[in-house]
Amino acid sequence: MSRRIAVTGFHAVTARLRNSPGTIELLYYDTARRDARMRQLLERARQATVRPIAIEAARLQALAGGTRHQGVVALCEAAPPLAQQSLAQVLDRIGTDSLLLLLDGITDPRNLGACLRTAEAAGVQAVVLPRDRSAPLSSAALKAASGAIESLLVVAVVNLARSMDEIKEVGVRIVGADHAAPRSIYGMDLCGPLAWALGAEGHGLRRLTRERCDELAAIPLAGQVESLNVSVAAGVCLFETCRQRNVAGSPAARSDRVQVR
Amino acid sequence: MSRRIAVTGFHAVTARLRNSPGTIELLYYDTARRDARMRQLLERARQATVRPIAIEAARLQALAGGTRHQGVVALCEAAPPLAQQSLAQVLDRIGTDSLLLLLDGITDPRNLGACLRTAEAAGVQAVVLPRDRSAPLSSAALKAASGAIESLLVVAVVNLARSMDEIKEVGVRIVGADHAAPRSIYGMDLCGPLAWALGAEGHGLRRLTRERCDELAAIPLAGQVESLNVSVAAGVCLFETCRQRNVAGSPAARSDRVQVR
Repeated sequence: MSRRIAVTGFHAVTARLRNSPGTIELLYYDTARRDARMRQLLERARQATVRPIAIEAARLQALAGGTRHQGVVALCEAAPPLAQQSLAQVLDRIGTDSLLLLLDGITDPRNLGACLRTAEAAGVQAVVLPRDRSAPLSSAALKAASGAIESLLVVAVVNLARSMDEIKEVGVRIVGADHAAPRSIYGMDLCGPLAWALGAEGHGLRRLTRERCDELAAIPLAGQVESLNVSVAAGVCLFETCRQRNVAGSPAARSDRVQVR
Repeated sequence: MSRRIAVTGFHAVTARLRNSPGTIELLYYDTARRDARMRQLLERARQATVRPIAIEAARLQALAGGTRHQGVVALCEAAPPLAQQSLAQVLDRIGTDSLLLLLDGITDPRNLGACLRTAEAAGVQAVVLPRDRSAPLSSAALKAASGAIESLLVVAVVNLARSMDEIKEVGVRIVGADHAAPRSIYGMDLCGPLAWALGAEGHGLRRLTRERCDELAAIPLAGQVESLNVSVAAGVCLFETCRQRNVAGSPAARSDRVQVR
């Protein structure tokens, strides 16, 4: 039996049209919106042989189930990636540049979606999260993910701590983001196969998760706020990793890392 | 006449207790919550001579107006920083390390709040935004800001383009984040007085704003997603700025910037 989900907003619907148009069962758009962005989306739908249906804003709102839809809602088969791949399949493909993201119990769907969007944009190979302690991939999460879920591998595991052991066994170093850690992320070599572990809103990494990390690192904060939003923290950690790897790859600038504490 | 706003959640209420307890008119907490975090907050309230009032979860929910409150809601005088300072006062205090953030029309309150939280954590001196084209500093925004608004200067201006001219006149360089820009943020020297300009969700910087930037820079993305959430983009840009400035301040590592394109 297939579940149907509402994919809403330009980013997410465009990504679904690009990556798996066959999963779109019905595509609705606001008949009152006639701007360039909407024309572009409708043209893309036509190319993918998906026929868009014009409806009124009020009905669209109901279909979107409370998420901001920007005038476009696609009713789709539920995204398949969650079930399709196992952690073992991900670990079979670990290379020297592999980058994973472990999310330890993100319970807010918008935060989860924003983390997935950030991870996809940073070129993360797979996101690993505990099946029972994460927000569902609801419409709000998919909207915040902005299409990332269409091209990003998300693996839901039964036991995150045990999965961390498996990840380490194939030679991936796990670094936990922890605002109380004495080391700064900027004082750390982030090249080589690596997984970032980030904890839930407010609580951070659980003890069991933190203890399984090879290292802990903090983003140095200058203000009075004690922590960053988890998707912002993910962005800072993942893009610093990308920066270091690009620098390491550029022969003119091999000195460009790991001096700062 | 004073407006009253609901400040919700542990981060935001704790920051308000720390920075301006006198603005708290009423502090409500969920009588059913008896964990360490709540005890700590109630103790802090007592120290600040704010008397907490125990009420039931259902009433708390109504007071919180739909935001996630974590069992604690403070009814406060509206945050004063918005009106207190003018752009001129900010520009009077520009120094060599000054860092500003210009937000061009962020209309989602949670995104605005997350941007403010990120800016405060990165040590931004002031956030400048257009008065009429920004999300209001609603309860949802204050919750997402996680207390940042208590210690961060937010200046709402009538005309952002004109304010950008004033900012440049005092020697602040304005760099716009634009995903179509050919230069990478990592190939750019971000030291010296600087303002980051970030645009709205989906649309990016408006033409008038973009044209007034001294330079444009992109965060290099590796995936299929076309852009980052605005608060994540703010985090990546601002913390890269902090990183470069710290490196520039450390004599052992002056070579640590500006080699990558």
